[in-house]
Amino acid sequence: MNYPNGIKKEKTVLKNKQDIVYKNRGMNLENDINATNQYYRENKKAFIYKKPTPIKLVKVDYKKRRINEAYFDMPSTTDYNGIYHEKYIDFEAKETVSLRGFPLVNIHKHQIEHIRNIYEAHGICFLIVRFTKLNKTYLLMAKDFITYLDNNKKSFIPIEYFKEKGYLIKDKYLPRVDYLEILSDVEDV
Amino acid sequence: MNYPNGIKKEKTVLKNKQDIVYKNRGMNLENDINATNQYYRENKKAFIYKKPTPIKLVKVDYKKRRINEAYFDMPSTTDYNGIYHEKYIDFEAKETVSLRGFPLVNIHKHQIEHIRNIYEAHGICFLIVRFTKLNKTYLLMAKDFITYLDNNKKSFIPIEYFKEKGYLIKDKYLPRVDYLEILSDVEDV
Repeated sequence: MNYPNGIKKEKTVLKNKQDIVYKNRGMNLENDINATNQYYRENKKAFIYKKPTPIKLVKVDYKKRRINEAYFDMPSTTDYNGIYHEKYIDFEAKETVSLRGFPLVNIHKHQIEHIRNIYEAHGICFLIVRFTKLNKTYLLMAKDFITYLDNNKKSFIPIEYFKEKGYLIKDKYLPRVDYLEILSDVEDV
Repeated sequence: MNYPNGIKKEKTVLKNKQDIVYKNRGMNLENDINATNQYYRENKKAFIYKKPTPIKLVKVDYKKRRINEAYFDMPSTTDYNGIYHEKYIDFEAKETVSLRGFPLVNIHKHQIEHIRNIYEAHGICFLIVRFTKLNKTYLLMAKDFITYLDNNKKSFIPIEYFKEKGYLIKDKYLPRVDYLEILSDVEDV
């Protein structure tokens, strides 16, 4: 579960500098994609937003508009969606420190079901996976993601599969993660 | 601001039965649309979800995954979006007790900007407004909403405008608010 930015942690002690670096790393892809989406919006290229993190409210003081007790909820869809070239676009973005591949424990059952539904409804649907230790970010179309799941029983998608079926997203200054550029090269989009 | 269901209120005393009826009424449209969207999903007619309510986190206990202080945030987009007939669909749903029209204070500046962007990007975009005291629910296309805003300086959209330009959504048992049926009759969708 990713937590949004700009929040104070309670009861959390960072042991050493490595932890801090690791934490920042964990937020990088989300920040990069948010900046990219803002760039797309400003240039009217696409209107794509990150959905708010789902939260289960328990105690609320409505007069102060203050939430006093709540819990993080499981997302039932992907994090990002919007419109691009008059079509519906929908994707999930994940980071992993793994060197061998993308651990499937990172994507919930309901999210996989959602990706399958959007793919079958002919939406533009994909994953963006950043392998932080390899410093590489791949886009994997829903079709190839689903095909892998339907034909393998591994608990992760090997990095080789991303190299073979995925599209490497090059680092850029502006926009930072130019995934729409990739889509213009993909068939059937 | 609508608050999600299933939450305990603090410091709230309902004075009499009328308050309770009023509160339930306030949640009806959201519940009806959520049930309608579930029906559409189950029948693979459309995949449309309500976005989670945006919340600004302040104090979080990560070990317990518990939020101890947070505030309701202003939404920058509309509440509902998804895919229908391979196209991007996006709408806002509001209830009003007003008899004379829809008070524009119910829609934030950023949301209006978003509706304009989606309309210009050729997404299917509209408002669903329920006039609870008239027991009528109208769908108003973004085009007609924007046209009204650009040509009037009133603080509300008169009920007559909904009758003239909008589409009355009939009450049904299943699905409860069949707004996709309306869209099939609308030009340019």
